[in-house]
Amino acid sequence: MRISELARRAGVPVGTVKYYLREGLLPAGTPTSATQAQYGEGHVERLSLIRVLVGPGGLSLTAVRTVLAAIDDPPSSLHELFGTAHSALGPVSTAGAPATARARELLARHGWAVHPDAPAVGQLAGALEGLDAVAVPGIDGLIDRYAELAAELAEADVAAVPAGSPTEAVRFVVAGTVLLEPLLLALRRLAEEDACARRIGSGTPAT
Amino acid sequence: MRISELARRAGVPVGTVKYYLREGLLPAGTPTSATQAQYGEGHVERLSLIRVLVGPGGLSLTAVRTVLAAIDDPPSSLHELFGTAHSALGPVSTAGAPATARARELLARHGWAVHPDAPAVGQLAGALEGLDAVAVPGIDGLIDRYAELAAELAEADVAAVPAGSPTEAVRFVVAGTVLLEPLLLALRRLAEEDACARRIGSGTPAT
Repeated sequence: MRISELARRAGVPVGTVKYYLREGLLPAGTPTSATQAQYGEGHVERLSLIRVLVGPGGLSLTAVRTVLAAIDDPPSSLHELFGTAHSALGPVSTAGAPATARARELLARHGWAVHPDAPAVGQLAGALEGLDAVAVPGIDGLIDRYAELAAELAEADVAAVPAGSPTEAVRFVVAGTVLLEPLLLALRRLAEEDACARRIGSGTPAT
Repeated sequence: MRISELARRAGVPVGTVKYYLREGLLPAGTPTSATQAQYGEGHVERLSLIRVLVGPGGLSLTAVRTVLAAIDDPPSSLHELFGTAHSALGPVSTAGAPATARARELLARHGWAVHPDAPAVGQLAGALEGLDAVAVPGIDGLIDRYAELAAELAEADVAAVPAGSPTEAVRFVVAGTVLLEPLLLALRRLAEEDACARRIGSGTPAT
């Protein structure tokens, strides 16, 4: 197909397709003349993935590049694959040493085997630091319950990774990191609304 | 205390404190001269909350204003309180009608009583649209499992809201929305790493 059809099928403006081609995020098509080239289904698929990573995923082009590199040359283990996705896609934390120590303590309490310098440890420390600053009573018990449920989410994630095809596995982990996170947050908010609705009259804060 | 001590105690630069005073986010102190005023513990507490909302929470000043208004004049029901927090703190979705219909179908399947135009419905629709675009095999089963676990998270959240004090309840819901979300995402990533580590050798994607 020509670049105009490729752009239409993936839902991306032609100018953006040309930009991705120049940046090397999208491989060149097969030239048919000095100014035209033909593109295949592989181009549509990759362009759709880039669109999602940049749009709903909110990724920078640098992060997209890292993710595409992992797809082109998949890591040899599931562990390394999740690590690559988390490093490429994770926010950078600026939490202090006490919060970081608390984060590691929480992980140890739940018996989780994680690298002490994993980016998510900093992310966890940042969240704990924020919670400390607003001094929410009874939050510690809730955090432990969150850790238990996070372990169940992770079990479901890891069990769902397609076996056999490294490319499919990478796509799954990337989509799982980028797209399941907003999904989870939306579901939690909706479930909160439902939980409140079912409690109406029994748990109003104004007494 | 003077403004310099207030700034130091809350960990905010003096210039920023003055800005919050001018913007009305922080109530004026008690004047002691033409150019000086005294501040109390209430100021430290509110300033610390603003710092967390703007920093780890990543809120705009408009969102901070909405949250502070809810603290100053708490909604009369828990349901309304969660609604206010979600509206003030939620991202705006641009999902299309088919994805929105799928989101409502998912909520109906789980029997959740939520307002059809709740902001999180759009957020959920956006995430579903993104997942569709990358066509991840077997994702539907995983989404249903996420919904079940989100319901358990929400039960824990709603049960943990302090009863009796509307101000404490608002602080809790705001902190729960703004700060527990990054906490949950960090815990899920760390739990994934742990789940992979425990499976090493049994579930590598490269076969």
